[in-house]
Amino acid sequence: MCAYDGTNFPGWQSQVRANAIQDVIEKRLAEIFGEPVRIYGSGRTDSGVHAHAQVFHFDAAWTHGVKKMLAAFRSGLPPEIQVKSVQAVADDFHARFNATGKRYEYRIQLGPSDPFERLYCWSVFRPLDLAAMKAAASILRGRHDFSAFTALNGSEREDSVRDLRRLDVVKRGRSLRIVAEADGFLYKMMRSLAGVLVSVGEGKLTPARVREILASKERTARVLTAPPRGLFLTKVYYP
Amino acid sequence: MCAYDGTNFPGWQSQVRANAIQDVIEKRLAEIFGEPVRIYGSGRTDSGVHAHAQVFHFDAAWTHGVKKMLAAFRSGLPPEIQVKSVQAVADDFHARFNATGKRYEYRIQLGPSDPFERLYCWSVFRPLDLAAMKAAASILRGRHDFSAFTALNGSEREDSVRDLRRLDVVKRGRSLRIVAEADGFLYKMMRSLAGVLVSVGEGKLTPARVREILASKERTARVLTAPPRGLFLTKVYYP
Repeated sequence: MCAYDGTNFPGWQSQVRANAIQDVIEKRLAEIFGEPVRIYGSGRTDSGVHAHAQVFHFDAAWTHGVKKMLAAFRSGLPPEIQVKSVQAVADDFHARFNATGKRYEYRIQLGPSDPFERLYCWSVFRPLDLAAMKAAASILRGRHDFSAFTALNGSEREDSVRDLRRLDVVKRGRSLRIVAEADGFLYKMMRSLAGVLVSVGEGKLTPARVREILASKERTARVLTAPPRGLFLTKVYYP
Repeated sequence: MCAYDGTNFPGWQSQVRANAIQDVIEKRLAEIFGEPVRIYGSGRTDSGVHAHAQVFHFDAAWTHGVKKMLAAFRSGLPPEIQVKSVQAVADDFHARFNATGKRYEYRIQLGPSDPFERLYCWSVFRPLDLAAMKAAASILRGRHDFSAFTALNGSEREDSVRDLRRLDVVKRGRSLRIVAEADGFLYKMMRSLAGVLVSVGEGKLTPARVREILASKERTARVLTAPPRGLFLTKVYYP
């Protein structure tokens, strides 16, 4: 399990230019094992998106225990990436296919932007109507076709039905968090949900309009994609 | 009064390449006033050092009140720099010459480094002996010639006596803060104090050795300069 600050990376998934988070971890593993080791993440995160708890697995012959594996990671990764724990798993474990759900958090800062939070939240200066945001969230919660909340067009999509088990708007002081949990998330779904909830908070959309957008199953320009810097993958669930 | 994340800046003080924090604020003021406006900070901060509360003053004809001045700053500065408050002062107020003291905080993170703290603390993996650090701090506290804790050599220095009114080592969970307050700080003094206290915590120096270094009034290689990213200017005092 690992955490990363995605600010300086083009995302999780391996890139042609070999500078994605996956590439950096694989490079370290190649140093440790003396041969290429492929890792499999629970899913991609976009360029600039962060993780507190991304899960990945790999197959390799290692006889020195998990503690030494963890130490080997710690000594050789850049400060943006931290392997937090290592555990041995069954041969047939797959970080992506065995995942039963994920939790994301989207962080918003209200009022003037704080220099020390600038990389880790979306700063929204205008006051937000929290009650309206919560009303919209309760409409979005549940099992729906979330086609209107993904960035892919119809031809690229497979099944777009997801069970959004949790969608909470939590305010503490000047910090607002949108916490979502689902069996899976479509491409840019979490940032689209955050964008729409902020639009509702600003009065640009009503909860009733959100209900129509959801039912339309069509992505429109009314659905804003919130910037990546506020998004954190916070948990991957396994049986 | 302003806060800034110093990570991407060559320090507070105006530079030939005009990209210091002072330069950026002056550029914004030139846009607001339509003419060059010089600002005067309470003191410099080095490249990479942060501030929660740097104070600067400037002379300009502004008739729209402090609230509009603040708004004008807010709309035109990069996210790393935040003007937190503006107030009208007496004609003879000088941010540097009127300052009676400053407070700095140096932040250390114990154990494995956290990706989201990487720009704002010094990560120290080895366990630190807190009692020894506190003993060394009590030796350094008070009115002394701090020549051994500055980076300048003798010929460049004026008076090196400073009244270190406070030097506390505060631990909370994995976060360790060194808080210092003095009538003034010599060049790199705070980072040298932090470096020495960490050396004591690691057992590389004893408190008795720190007493000798202080008395010697000579900078030696035993005095480590802690990295700038952990340092924050947190308060400037005025009468």
